[in-house]
Amino acid sequence: MRRSIATVCVSGTLGDKLTAAAAAGFDGIEIFENDLVVSPWSPKEIRSRCADLGLSIDLYQPFRDFEAVPPEVLARNLDRAERKFDVMAELGVDTILVCSSVSPAAVDDDELAASQLRQLAERAGTRDIRIAYEALAWGKHVSTWDHSWRIVQQADHPNLGLCLDSFHVLSREVDPAGIAGITPGKIFFLQLADAPYLHMDVLQWSRHHRLFPGQGAFDLPGFVGLVLAAGYDGPLSLEVFNDVFRQADPARTAVDAMRSLIALEDRIDGPARRLPAAPELAGLAFTEFAVDGQSGPELRTALRGLGFTHTGQHRTKPVELWEQAACRIVLNSAVTRPQAPGAATISAFAITSADPQRSLQRAEALSAPAHPNVREPGEAELAAIIAPDGTSVFVTRPDDDWRSDFLPTGVPAAPGAGLRTTDHLGLAQPFDHFDEAGLFYHSVLGLDHLATEEYAAPFGLMRSRAVANPDRTVRLALTVALLRRGEWAPAVADPQHVAFSTDDIIATAAALSRPGLPAPLPSLPVPDNYYADLAARFALSDDFIATLCRYGILYDRDASGGELLHLYTPVLGGRVFFEIVQRRHYDRFGEANAPVRMAAHRHRRLNKG
Amino acid sequence: MRRSIATVCVSGTLGDKLTAAAAAGFDGIEIFENDLVVSPWSPKEIRSRCADLGLSIDLYQPFRDFEAVPPEVLARNLDRAERKFDVMAELGVDTILVCSSVSPAAVDDDELAASQLRQLAERAGTRDIRIAYEALAWGKHVSTWDHSWRIVQQADHPNLGLCLDSFHVLSREVDPAGIAGITPGKIFFLQLADAPYLHMDVLQWSRHHRLFPGQGAFDLPGFVGLVLAAGYDGPLSLEVFNDVFRQADPARTAVDAMRSLIALEDRIDGPARRLPAAPELAGLAFTEFAVDGQSGPELRTALRGLGFTHTGQHRTKPVELWEQAACRIVLNSAVTRPQAPGAATISAFAITSADPQRSLQRAEALSAPAHPNVREPGEAELAAIIAPDGTSVFVTRPDDDWRSDFLPTGVPAAPGAGLRTTDHLGLAQPFDHFDEAGLFYHSVLGLDHLATEEYAAPFGLMRSRAVANPDRTVRLALTVALLRRGEWAPAVADPQHVAFSTDDIIATAAALSRPGLPAPLPSLPVPDNYYADLAARFALSDDFIATLCRYGILYDRDASGGELLHLYTPVLGGRVFFEIVQRRHYDRFGEANAPVRMAAHRHRRLNKG
Repeated sequence: MRRSIATVCVSGTLGDKLTAAAAAGFDGIEIFENDLVVSPWSPKEIRSRCADLGLSIDLYQPFRDFEAVPPEVLARNLDRAERKFDVMAELGVDTILVCSSVSPAAVDDDELAASQLRQLAERAGTRDIRIAYEALAWGKHVSTWDHSWRIVQQADHPNLGLCLDSFHVLSREVDPAGIAGITPGKIFFLQLADAPYLHMDVLQWSRHHRLFPGQGAFDLPGFVGLVLAAGYDGPLSLEVFNDVFRQADPARTAVDAMRSLIALEDRIDGPARRLPAAPELAGLAFTEFAVDGQSGPELRTALRGLGFTHTGQHRTKPVELWEQAACRIVLNSAVTRPQAPGAATISAFAITSADPQRSLQRAEALSAPAHPNVREPGEAELAAIIAPDGTSVFVTRPDDDWRSDFLPTGVPAAPGAGLRTTDHLGLAQPFDHFDEAGLFYHSVLGLDHLATEEYAAPFGLMRSRAVANPDRTVRLALTVALLRRGEWAPAVADPQHVAFSTDDIIATAAALSRPGLPAPLPSLPVPDNYYADLAARFALSDDFIATLCRYGILYDRDASGGELLHLYTPVLGGRVFFEIVQRRHYDRFGEANAPVRMAAHRHRRLNKG
Repeated sequence: MRRSIATVCVSGTLGDKLTAAAAAGFDGIEIFENDLVVSPWSPKEIRSRCADLGLSIDLYQPFRDFEAVPPEVLARNLDRAERKFDVMAELGVDTILVCSSVSPAAVDDDELAASQLRQLAERAGTRDIRIAYEALAWGKHVSTWDHSWRIVQQADHPNLGLCLDSFHVLSREVDPAGIAGITPGKIFFLQLADAPYLHMDVLQWSRHHRLFPGQGAFDLPGFVGLVLAAGYDGPLSLEVFNDVFRQADPARTAVDAMRSLIALEDRIDGPARRLPAAPELAGLAFTEFAVDGQSGPELRTALRGLGFTHTGQHRTKPVELWEQAACRIVLNSAVTRPQAPGAATISAFAITSADPQRSLQRAEALSAPAHPNVREPGEAELAAIIAPDGTSVFVTRPDDDWRSDFLPTGVPAAPGAGLRTTDHLGLAQPFDHFDEAGLFYHSVLGLDHLATEEYAAPFGLMRSRAVANPDRTVRLALTVALLRRGEWAPAVADPQHVAFSTDDIIATAAALSRPGLPAPLPSLPVPDNYYADLAARFALSDDFIATLCRYGILYDRDASGGELLHLYTPVLGGRVFFEIVQRRHYDRFGEANAPVRMAAHRHRRLNKG
């Protein structure tokens, strides 16, 4: 029999995957849509690359949430399908996997599902495309192979058949024996996966996923309140284990544990045990990069390209201040924090606190003592709290007195590019300290935990956690590889970034590409496939998408219609990049586009190297 | 309130944990029994160490599977409890956590549970000990806090109260509000843990745990047979993703994937696609260590200490043969495989095949091509298959013709120590290639997959997979850190080992400690706490346990009464150790004792360094 492999089975970019499949002797591949979307190769180029490698393209997958929907959704879904049929025609693949819907819009109506799948098959038939319908084991209404087979029979169209995936079949209790009786020719595709029999019950949950108070979702102040109401006066004792703590540095874990209890007691004890309240924060005052002779010049060029001006020079240290509106970047050539040679690092950032003294007292009470900055007489007092990843968090006064440490350079102000403030920092966290970092920023600085996301990136699963203050003038996006980052690929590990806000990203992008600028912003190339997919996913005008495409701007929309427009620079100074964001009632971080950015960073690096 | 932490919350040995808890400012600790069992400190020493650090011992935990059992089990459980009360007296701790039973022996009878817990509390009362009864969320009959409270009320004894653990309470659907109404003084202990709300359903199972055919538990030959019976003639396509593959080298993953399909087809296709059948294997012919000027002398001394004789010297290479009965070790000073300086490595092992040529043909057909050994004219032909961890697997003939490559040294045979054969090899696998290794040994060599185990070790979770041939003359134990090994502790990472069999481990151990031997075996110290726990767990005579203790022999018993007696050497040559095993109708590998060995290796290293 012919042997195929889905591109999702192996790590890397589409190029890495095709090479690996061909070298291992596979006859064909399934193209996983996300691999295509993040690829700089057009579908035709992918087709020709596969042909060169002797690989047939056997399946395009997956097409989601199609069937059993109201008429207006059906119209949109058919339009979406036509766009994917276009891609398939260019790829030269004749079968598409349509998996059973998990959409809340889908209704439990087999007849409707069959009739809509028949319409899809009819359209597919005019283009010689076959629809392989697959019951996802967690499909909303259709989740077993026999149910999908009943619907396919009911629809009764030659271009509609089944896709059987051994995982979806064997992970459910429906007897697979009946498969042998399926009408010959109606199994369009077979996908194979093995798996251990797992009982993902409360025991596994407990063994692998306990967290210290404040790192998870339980209402522990409420729970402890009940216990205290019953007259309990013994200790509060932590009983926590998970895969990470079991192998992490015990000294660090114990401090994290202690911080969790102190923060918990602050919410349940009487005033006697109250911590100094977290003062209101008013923004990110500056971000400091540690640079050396290699990364420094590269960052200076990039800052000029972004419309920044070198406005100040520190009185006593080799430290430069660069500004544009309220965006401030400090380049520090004297930081001794260990880093790879040539790799710039976010060594510090400063938050503006309504009461810096109280911020530091709170940190101290939470086992995060402040380290006074080494300073000369007359220089501003800037104390730093050390975050779990080693970054110094300076706490500044609302009057920005730290700026008086810098002498004006007299460099004429650049025209700028409309950047307004620092929107957020993207901080890749050390693997062992991700949950510790979340608790640190929440308890020490009083930032709220907005959301935790997981997504598949080209080199492994990623987890992100966003924290912010109530008015969103301080936002941090913490990220970590869920398992670890693949070490086989020579790419950028753990990049950090600074995102600046603009009110009009199109105007900003246009300003950045103005020929007058000393060094135009090097734009990160975004694949055309991404924009084709955007057009299929969202009802956006062709003109708008063309504009996004011209400037390499990415787009995201949240459940309530809020929109994010954003663009990235390439990786600079070895480890960092900049992002420009325009938010329209949007409170997230464009995580859906992170894999596109990662693949583009890797492609750029491969093409440079 | 006082703040405590369970020792299980942080990584390392008990010493590491106590230091970390004290440094973070905790008032007290819960002693997790396994941490005590693997510690070389007596309970009194632990008590005094805690006192020095300003830590109180607030709880001893856990005591499992006590209540609602038949009378003969109750008697054994009460005896077991008395032994733990002895330990508690030495520790100076007055509260023990008794968690609700998960034993198949337990019956669903609250009255019986209450009456037996009352008996336990009565005995505890005479020693001023309190029993804190906790409902495990996955307890067999008692799994909710309100149920445990009803039983405690029914038992009605002053030395019996509740332990409440926020995880067990909040992970279940029973309303915690009623906790506030528990009789004051009856909550003996409170344990806190947070957790994310997780839905460990089939979706998570699919996203994180799919495997290539033959690596999991599904009956895929049966499944594919059904699909083929329905007339399917499309490709067999792999649709597999898990956390490891997502970040691993795609070239390696693709080869692994291809091997899985070839092996699967061998079980479903007609004779046309059959692989050369795996020939019968007759044993491990030899194990080769790559050594250098530092690790070589250390291994030679150890082999002499184990009663081996340097019997042969290779005709053309700097390679030595050491023998004792059918145990053969080869020390190779010419292997160029990358390794840390001074660290010996198992660079190769040889299996005896009934048909070496066919073994190699099968390997070749499974994308594991053989590499011919570089050899001089007249030397035996030894081809090697390269295992996923880089180890060369030589396939030898039953007549052991490879031995003719060695010239006899004429060294007089040592008296030996009763070692008979190589029982098994312990091979720590590279993180990314554990499942690949399991499939490799199963498909290429035809070894059966015996069992996969997971256990908590001092530096993180471990997973082991045992493979063997039907008559058990070839056994391999593959291990890997489930997440990764803690990098904070300067200890032995990924040790490899060779286990030799004996028919009488007591006699062997006595022979090894005979003063006549050139260099007595350095024995790995096993903690007294381990033997105290052994006495509580198994009905073994005091004499027998004293003998085990004298020689540092560990003990395990399987569900059907089979017994393992085994002992370990310290780590030698940087990365390896030896084990001596005596099996009595026992088919496992003593995994339960691995944490004891790991802690002892770390203690030894700390005390040397």
